[in-house]
Amino acid sequence: MPIAASVLLTDLYQFTMLQTYHAEGMNEPAVFELFSRRLPPERGFLLAAGLEQALDFLGNLRFTAAELDWLTDCGRFRPEFVAALEGFRFTGTVDALPEGTAFFANEPVLRVTAPLPQAQLVESRLINLIHFQTLIASKAARCVLAAPDQLLVDFGMRRAHGAEAALLAARANYLAGFAGTATVLAGMQFGIPLFGTMAHSLIQAHDREEDAFERFAAAQPNNVTLLIDTYDTEAAVHKLVNLAPRLQQRGIVIKGVRIDSGDLAEHARQVRQILDKGGLSQVTILGSGDLDEHRIAELRAAGAPFNAFGIGTRLDASTDAPTLDMVYKLQEYAGRPRRKRSEGKATWPGRKQIYRRMSEEGTFVGDCLGLEDHPQPGEALLQPVMRGGQRLAPPESLAVIRERVQQQLAALPFTLRANGTDIYPVDIAPELQELAAQLDQETH
Amino acid sequence: MPIAASVLLTDLYQFTMLQTYHAEGMNEPAVFELFSRRLPPERGFLLAAGLEQALDFLGNLRFTAAELDWLTDCGRFRPEFVAALEGFRFTGTVDALPEGTAFFANEPVLRVTAPLPQAQLVESRLINLIHFQTLIASKAARCVLAAPDQLLVDFGMRRAHGAEAALLAARANYLAGFAGTATVLAGMQFGIPLFGTMAHSLIQAHDREEDAFERFAAAQPNNVTLLIDTYDTEAAVHKLVNLAPRLQQRGIVIKGVRIDSGDLAEHARQVRQILDKGGLSQVTILGSGDLDEHRIAELRAAGAPFNAFGIGTRLDASTDAPTLDMVYKLQEYAGRPRRKRSEGKATWPGRKQIYRRMSEEGTFVGDCLGLEDHPQPGEALLQPVMRGGQRLAPPESLAVIRERVQQQLAALPFTLRANGTDIYPVDIAPELQELAAQLDQETH
Repeated sequence: MPIAASVLLTDLYQFTMLQTYHAEGMNEPAVFELFSRRLPPERGFLLAAGLEQALDFLGNLRFTAAELDWLTDCGRFRPEFVAALEGFRFTGTVDALPEGTAFFANEPVLRVTAPLPQAQLVESRLINLIHFQTLIASKAARCVLAAPDQLLVDFGMRRAHGAEAALLAARANYLAGFAGTATVLAGMQFGIPLFGTMAHSLIQAHDREEDAFERFAAAQPNNVTLLIDTYDTEAAVHKLVNLAPRLQQRGIVIKGVRIDSGDLAEHARQVRQILDKGGLSQVTILGSGDLDEHRIAELRAAGAPFNAFGIGTRLDASTDAPTLDMVYKLQEYAGRPRRKRSEGKATWPGRKQIYRRMSEEGTFVGDCLGLEDHPQPGEALLQPVMRGGQRLAPPESLAVIRERVQQQLAALPFTLRANGTDIYPVDIAPELQELAAQLDQETH
Repeated sequence: MPIAASVLLTDLYQFTMLQTYHAEGMNEPAVFELFSRRLPPERGFLLAAGLEQALDFLGNLRFTAAELDWLTDCGRFRPEFVAALEGFRFTGTVDALPEGTAFFANEPVLRVTAPLPQAQLVESRLINLIHFQTLIASKAARCVLAAPDQLLVDFGMRRAHGAEAALLAARANYLAGFAGTATVLAGMQFGIPLFGTMAHSLIQAHDREEDAFERFAAAQPNNVTLLIDTYDTEAAVHKLVNLAPRLQQRGIVIKGVRIDSGDLAEHARQVRQILDKGGLSQVTILGSGDLDEHRIAELRAAGAPFNAFGIGTRLDASTDAPTLDMVYKLQEYAGRPRRKRSEGKATWPGRKQIYRRMSEEGTFVGDCLGLEDHPQPGEALLQPVMRGGQRLAPPESLAVIRERVQQQLAALPFTLRANGTDIYPVDIAPELQELAAQLDQETH
């Protein structure tokens, strides 16, 4: 399992704060909410993702003997504080948006209620897990909306930021509606369908391109997708047309070709023509190479006859918006609402809920961010998922989450689906505005 | 150890290609080089990083029984091929730039020479490891150059892309000259110095801000850095000035304050003044909040009296240039040079070396990308690091690499250091140009 489980994957200040809470006996219930302060200009909505890994993290949180020894030896912490960490477990409550739910600025995707030290310590890794998968699922959904008729495959492992990013990006992409991934470990760990073709090196390692095609086809007769742009794309397709009858005699059918460079739209048109004239109309064309939702929209607008796209770097690093302004803030402690008032970073205090209103046709009309104990019209979106440190249900299957994403994308207002830069209406409930104003009167 | 070691963290096409090579007995030596096709417009140089993790990966490459079972059960591969993977090891040769070396477009940072299947299988993870640390070290170096008088700390764990990115970003930042990181696990795993302050939640969890300051200080009397922007920055500093004598009686000295919001330059000036007037001139000021090299340059230009900066999101996700166009290409097989000719993606063939010329003052004057067996004037930069799958030397210490980075940054032409968008001269040796032209004559 390559998901780092170490509780030391956190910020040092969590431990300095915990030492203070330990010294002061500050162990009352704290309510923290995880939300995005604003959306990047390039995003009109976000898709919640990563809850499964977050719950797994909370459920398995504990210190190993080696970690406790290190904390002792590093010289920063009092022995009685380190000793108290030995039996540390997460025993709190979690409410969250089901994975695949669309959400917007200021709306909590997850709420933790637990004794202050527990709720505090988990901050850094909870953000780290939910931020990344939400980031990628949201980008992937834009690709899915841009390519409703094409099969999409995640090709991004190599330029994802490290091992965990590669693996979790494959999961996030699949949730959002991708057909699968090239990342083998994601197939083994998550059961995500795998897709793969060949690299240019296989062509180059042969003296003749047609030999490379034939030998590759013979080695996996059931899954032949050939890369045709190593030297001259159209010349390669002519070789393929010549080769096809010989392969057919051996019972091998060419399934697809991949184009990875040059003017993709122009090549795809020519390749389609040569294939069709050569009796290979069943052969599909996959495009790859620096693709994202914008490039795909251009290719579709140009009528490029692609059946599938492999999307890598720009997706798995979400290059146009590589981070979200996602934070985890204290909203209540010891039964009293709390408000951070820092300039430009003030938060909405208290234990909140998202209330979503729908049109009769099932389109999202607008949300209201309100207090949990002052319900507003609409559907309440945050669901109970953990109580007393125990999950309330087994993990959702990826199939269920994929289905939810399709429903959510279909219910988004058309302008958000189409360009993603419109602003979806999120009202702040009057009671919440009053509470914030009231807290602003207090002196600290 | 959270670094994913699974050999299945790779692209599916590596296995389909390997199955072809296995069927055809293609086992001759292959030479692959890892390089960046171009630099992002925002970067004038790159710093090589990640070699240590790459060598660790190559040295420990093997299939577990569970992985082999999965490969068999997935139904894509022939039993004799999967069986042949059982004893799979990396037995090849690696030459590389020492970590911390500055390099430029088209220059190989690493070269693998091994039987084709070995050299091929490792592609995806080698790029994944070296791409990310190089990306981050290069961004961090720009921050270091922008803040020569300030202490820099990595605060980026929470919005790094997953666990491994967080951990390896801490390493890359430290190599590039940061003083340390907030990421505790990086302290335990790599011995990187740790820094940390407190979050707003600690302030909010107390009814009075001065109580939070006093209790935090009492709980770690040797490392008191206080966050002062939760409600009103200047008011908080006045509270601190009042509190200081009482703390001093208890033997506690306030070390620093952190400002995380608002007009940082203006706040820093006012905070400095209040501290100095209040007899706290030894207290340092740390700035944080969406910082990068550009913001730091602005703050310095504005004369903002910061002693230190915590840099997070924009650094650990390298948000202005979140990926590099880094690739791993076959340059020779079975003793014959190979060239990919795809439009816009053609490579320089053959086994290459980087030759760097220096001025008498020790400044880099220009590089020549040439063939290894046709040496050019200048220092040859690629060094032997692995032979027969065995490392030639123990891992370099981080201290040694940090020292190298300082030398490299000092030797960069001034225009590259100052703004990073000038283009450093990299010539292509005549013999290499001839070889490429000659290969272009061949038909495939």
